[in-house]
Amino acid sequence: MGSTLFGNLKARCAADWESYVTHPFVRALGDGSLPRESFEHYLKQDYLFLIHFSRAYALSIYKSNTLADMRYAKNTLAALLDEEINLHTSFCGSWGITERQMLDEPEAAANIAYTRYVLETGNSGDLLDLQVALVPCVIGYAEVAQWLIAQPSTVLEGNPYRGWIEMYAGEEYQAVAQSASTQLDDLGGRYGASARIQSLEKIFRDATRLEIAFWQMGLDRSY
Amino acid sequence: MGSTLFGNLKARCAADWESYVTHPFVRALGDGSLPRESFEHYLKQDYLFLIHFSRAYALSIYKSNTLADMRYAKNTLAALLDEEINLHTSFCGSWGITERQMLDEPEAAANIAYTRYVLETGNSGDLLDLQVALVPCVIGYAEVAQWLIAQPSTVLEGNPYRGWIEMYAGEEYQAVAQSASTQLDDLGGRYGASARIQSLEKIFRDATRLEIAFWQMGLDRSY
Amino acid sequence: MGSTLFGNLKARCAADWESYVTHPFVRALGDGSLPRESFEHYLKQDYLFLIHFSRAYALSIYKSNTLADMRYAKNTLAALLDEEINLHTSFCGSWGITERQMLDEPEAAANIAYTRYVLETGNSGDLLDLQVALVPCVIGYAEVAQWLIAQPSTVLEGNPYRGWIEMYAGEEYQAVAQSASTQLDDLGGRYGASARIQSLEKIFRDATRLEIAFWQMGLDRSY
Amino acid sequence: MGSTLFGNLKARCAADWESYVTHPFVRALGDGSLPRESFEHYLKQDYLFLIHFSRAYALSIYKSNTLADMRYAKNTLAALLDEEINLHTSFCGSWGITERQMLDEPEAAANIAYTRYVLETGNSGDLLDLQVALVPCVIGYAEVAQWLIAQPSTVLEGNPYRGWIEMYAGEEYQAVAQSASTQLDDLGGRYGASARIQSLEKIFRDATRLEIAFWQMGLDRSY
Repeated sequence: MGSTLFGNLKARCAADWESYVTHPFVRALGDGSLPRESFEHYLKQDYLFLIHFSRAYALSIYKSNTLADMRYAKNTLAALLDEEINLHTSFCGSWGITERQMLDEPEAAANIAYTRYVLETGNSGDLLDLQVALVPCVIGYAEVAQWLIAQPSTVLEGNPYRGWIEMYAGEEYQAVAQSASTQLDDLGGRYGASARIQSLEKIFRDATRLEIAFWQMGLDRSY
Repeated sequence: MGSTLFGNLKARCAADWESYVTHPFVRALGDGSLPRESFEHYLKQDYLFLIHFSRAYALSIYKSNTLADMRYAKNTLAALLDEEINLHTSFCGSWGITERQMLDEPEAAANIAYTRYVLETGNSGDLLDLQVALVPCVIGYAEVAQWLIAQPSTVLEGNPYRGWIEMYAGEEYQAVAQSASTQLDDLGGRYGASARIQSLEKIFRDATRLEIAFWQMGLDRSY
Repeated sequence: MGSTLFGNLKARCAADWESYVTHPFVRALGDGSLPRESFEHYLKQDYLFLIHFSRAYALSIYKSNTLADMRYAKNTLAALLDEEINLHTSFCGSWGITERQMLDEPEAAANIAYTRYVLETGNSGDLLDLQVALVPCVIGYAEVAQWLIAQPSTVLEGNPYRGWIEMYAGEEYQAVAQSASTQLDDLGGRYGASARIQSLEKIFRDATRLEIAFWQMGLDRSY
Repeated sequence: MGSTLFGNLKARCAADWESYVTHPFVRALGDGSLPRESFEHYLKQDYLFLIHFSRAYALSIYKSNTLADMRYAKNTLAALLDEEINLHTSFCGSWGITERQMLDEPEAAANIAYTRYVLETGNSGDLLDLQVALVPCVIGYAEVAQWLIAQPSTVLEGNPYRGWIEMYAGEEYQAVAQSASTQLDDLGGRYGASARIQSLEKIFRDATRLEIAFWQMGLDRSY
């Protein structure tokens, strides 16, 4: 993706990006050594995350200038509210976590930091700013899973986190990430990304740093 | 609906509401005397209106505090983007108006006034403020159609606007309006409508006045 | 200003701009033939306008990425809230209009259209979008006054509107307009105006059309 | 303040409030044991905080429905942009920190969490929601300083943090906090606080928890 806007932003934030994709939380998912309590903490926070992530797509629709952009974001929003949140709830159920528990969970500071950063950046800026704040998550998870699959240290057999890895490494999610990158390039052209690259880089870097803090919150089980 | 929040707001703005529901544009739809050019002008503006109306539901999702509120608004949003806008395009096609023509149409000032008032009131205030700005449209069209059906002067046989009247007088749309009123009462309880009734009345009155201006724009074919 | 962003936008919307600057309301200010009732209607609406105009500068501060941009907008905001609104109130007082009357005045649809368009465009887009929506007013009034001064038909001696014309034609306001154009160029560079010129043109044209509707509202004394 | 809205919210979040006001960072300010590096980290982050805090007051002006509310928030905003930020810069200078250093400082996650939470809560909700998110900071700092002054463990003589403590314990800042509480009560009445107390409590609690995380960030010198 070197010639894409996403690839450009990633290259400008290479050290932070590397720390995000290869974070100890990620490595521990790959070799199965992540403490169960850390994964459960992550799962519960991720449920709350998905609610604000959905709000970010609703905000994207509000901020769109064309019906095509509105419909593109609406498809993601509907998938989140109609399917993804329910799938996540089922998945959490398989780890013994109920939806009630997740709704009662206090939002961790690292969770608030990333979700509100995305939403506030979106409110303050335009649709391109908002999408640049979102892609470290959307495309990043696809890269994390690909990276894990490629590591010798990764063990799928008997790994309790195999389902998680295979979901994001799977064709369906990889296509979602590919489509998000294509959409970002399209927006970038229309919204003057080249002339704004420094402020977009700042957004991308902050969002990536907040993703790192999110993994760390999982490891530390912090609030 | 006297004991509903909607009924309360309507009663507080009775004269404006009456002017809206029984506007000369409405009467002329009922007896079929509305000039074809006025209706076509209205239809083209209404297409642009629907785009911003969809944005208002996206904003409602962003502004929701519960998954239930998010999903409620998402259903309306999806219906608008997946169906209503296409239905409107087909309906306009039957009047010889193409989608290209509607996208090229300059937005009339009265159209901008209402749509941006709704969106800006929503941004400035909370979800209740936004919904109060929307209901004169959502519930109002159901009342307009009911009122028309009840008028001796209304003629359905051979009336070129029969399709429009029957769509809004029909069970499906009446149920939409009923549901919107119920949802407004629910929001009103949770967001402290009673203590805020004066500022909500101001929003309802302004929105109603802007609906009157919208009808007038149709009559005058103004921009 | 041909090589400025403002000059570029004006050239792209030349016909609308001409209609705005040379509107019959403007001509009638110049030769003194404007009915007193129209001017008073305009003044009362302009008071309400100034409140939302102030809100637009507050929104500009919120949307700024640098302290310098924040302070620039803050100066305008403070001038509006500390001085301009009071000056306007005094000026209206000299026409026999009280502040209470102005606060009780219903906002005309054309007034709502322009102010909410500016605010909503700002919320939906970024700081550049917001400023592009504002400059037809800020810089336009300076051009209107200059144009009036240059017309043979304009009469200052004994013209009841001489104070209004001279205020906007005066050095102080001309410098405000010049500074707004310089600031717009600066923003335009940082926010990628060249690549976004078509959507900026749409905002500028809509805002100019809504300024025309505002003059017309004055002439018609409409709500 | 037991019968104020602020007092009510504080009582509902008593345990979190206690943890905030008496946080180890605060105690270490009081007895002078706070490592200099922690205080400097805190000061640098606080500079970035003040910028977003100013944006929150700009957003308050945008979200106001009355000129009086606009002017009230404008006074705070002008004080911040014209004086407080410069005072903070001077104060930091006395600790050997330059403004350039502060502008180059990456925003810590805990800083982003609180500032963006406030701004996003404000965008999503109304003026009351926004102010409830701000008061744990505005009024909280006055309480922290009062509490410190009352502790036997607090030492002013020779304490390097004496200036900080005395600034917030001083009459001027205490009056600011008192005025903020009065303003909150006024808003609470007009915006239906009683009926919305549960969602306001959630905002107050989240904001207080994020203040705790902010102190902790100072102690840990974390990013």
